[in-house]
Amino acid sequence: MTTIKDVAKHAGVSVATVSRYLNKKGYISEEAKKNIETSIKQLNYRPNQVARSLSTKRMQTIGLIVPDIMNPFFPEIARAIEDTALKEGYTVILCNSDEQAHKERQYIETLKQKYIAGFIIATNQLEREYYAGLNVPLVLLDRITDGKAPSVSSHNKNGAVLGTDYLVSCGVKEIACISGPQNVVPAYERTQGFLKAVEGLNIKTHVVESPFHFKEAEKTAFDLLSAHPGIDGIFAGSDVIAIGVQRAIHRLGLSVPDDIQIVGYDGISLGEMVTPSLTTVDQNIYQLGETAVKMLLKIIEGQELDKEHVMIAPSLIVRDSTKEKSK
Amino acid sequence: MTTIKDVAKHAGVSVATVSRYLNKKGYISEEAKKNIETSIKQLNYRPNQVARSLSTKRMQTIGLIVPDIMNPFFPEIARAIEDTALKEGYTVILCNSDEQAHKERQYIETLKQKYIAGFIIATNQLEREYYAGLNVPLVLLDRITDGKAPSVSSHNKNGAVLGTDYLVSCGVKEIACISGPQNVVPAYERTQGFLKAVEGLNIKTHVVESPFHFKEAEKTAFDLLSAHPGIDGIFAGSDVIAIGVQRAIHRLGLSVPDDIQIVGYDGISLGEMVTPSLTTVDQNIYQLGETAVKMLLKIIEGQELDKEHVMIAPSLIVRDSTKEKSK
Repeated sequence: MTTIKDVAKHAGVSVATVSRYLNKKGYISEEAKKNIETSIKQLNYRPNQVARSLSTKRMQTIGLIVPDIMNPFFPEIARAIEDTALKEGYTVILCNSDEQAHKERQYIETLKQKYIAGFIIATNQLEREYYAGLNVPLVLLDRITDGKAPSVSSHNKNGAVLGTDYLVSCGVKEIACISGPQNVVPAYERTQGFLKAVEGLNIKTHVVESPFHFKEAEKTAFDLLSAHPGIDGIFAGSDVIAIGVQRAIHRLGLSVPDDIQIVGYDGISLGEMVTPSLTTVDQNIYQLGETAVKMLLKIIEGQELDKEHVMIAPSLIVRDSTKEKSK
Repeated sequence: MTTIKDVAKHAGVSVATVSRYLNKKGYISEEAKKNIETSIKQLNYRPNQVARSLSTKRMQTIGLIVPDIMNPFFPEIARAIEDTALKEGYTVILCNSDEQAHKERQYIETLKQKYIAGFIIATNQLEREYYAGLNVPLVLLDRITDGKAPSVSSHNKNGAVLGTDYLVSCGVKEIACISGPQNVVPAYERTQGFLKAVEGLNIKTHVVESPFHFKEAEKTAFDLLSAHPGIDGIFAGSDVIAIGVQRAIHRLGLSVPDDIQIVGYDGISLGEMVTPSLTTVDQNIYQLGETAVKMLLKIIEGQELDKEHVMIAPSLIVRDSTKEKSK
């Protein structure tokens, strides 16, 4: 990040002169003024409103950008991030991007100019190059795993294999993957995992896509199950999708797990609250959030990361939406 | 709030001298130093790390303290607050207090010294006098409605009357109120509303208390329904309690709403996702959050509040956990 020192050096003046210029206080020669203005432009310097005056005093706040805190995955991530950050003396600004590029950009640009030490970004509306070019400490969470910016995510493909294998082992004969939107990286990876798991098996398979919202998932599942009454197993791209599927099955007068078994993905606490409770692939959400904060703090403190892209291994939680595994 | 100006005036020195003292830069006479130290102590002045240098530049950040963002009521409140704040150019720091007084106090004291313009506090671990004495703009949300600090909350008693009246009109004969903890103001008020609604009716009633957690609520409901098999209606102190009740009924081999009807309280989106979906008293959570921000910004900007304690009228959402109202 360009600092006031860089500007001073580039302009061939003292930091105090740049400071007088920025604060519009005290005498500056016309020549110095011109040089400073050129340097600010060329270096793309943005006077950090806080750092300008606090110099070495870090404000210890990180920005967390999520698509929507009302999507039940994100309160759990936010909780893990706030917990871990607080232990390290950081507070967390909560930002909902609504998956809108302009809103995400507005938050990043505004906070960058303020007191933010870094960002954890759990949404990826903007180009990968944008994040890499931001010139501010950041960690991408959950959604991007192969760009230039450091990231942490669940090993979605392995998780989907784990969940699908389990569903198959429970004796299903015709299985549908109701995935999230395929332009969202984890949703795509989970579908790839599903396809890998069923490859070569003598099992009829379907793949359909749904938004990560339970109402749309309910509708998608209702239509699919009406058209294919032989389906007896569903691998859902998220727990929220799985809960929509449960409602569709109930509306069709069928029962979980007797008629149709379900495996979800996420491990949100909602999966425990529904009836029957949800068998699911647990992302280990707390660990995801905790790891993201630890990586970010290392970057903020100028330490080397052990790994640029961390993948957290998922695990399986068996509950009541599947029958006991056949021996 | 004590400012650097107040200290200077009290110490009989210039603001610049106090500033030199605070920044440990430049010459100060021993006498001036002594006077400043005494004034800082007497006035309980805390050099606001940001305001010290930015003077008139407000940082436009508000602190939101909730018990736990993972309790599904609070992401909805947080969303409304972030939305409304952003429109007004404010960002939101998210703080989980875990209902622990020391954590809440730590957050308030730390952020007060930083860049925070004000607080919205949706937890009340500390004494009412503490909030009133904080000397920082704040609005209490949801929990306290009669203290000295400004507040916004649902009209819990009216809401409970609304929900209970509806349950009675659906034909229940023996009704239980499974309330939240009675030391939490809204939980207490809802129980009072329930008692008011059933007063004088020829209906057998029970009141039991449960934490606002679905597992404990499930256990409480299971024990109650096992001991009193005649109960055919439950008014729950929150939607999360209602969802625990649903699970208990399912475990008992009974059905909602055929055997037992349920009315919840809150109007969180979870109530739509469960099967059967939940009839509930809607707090109008978004309006609660929006109102809290608008009140807080008025206080921050030094405007007069129309009302110190605002109560939002609740409304009823009829879904599938009750039978059609008898005509």
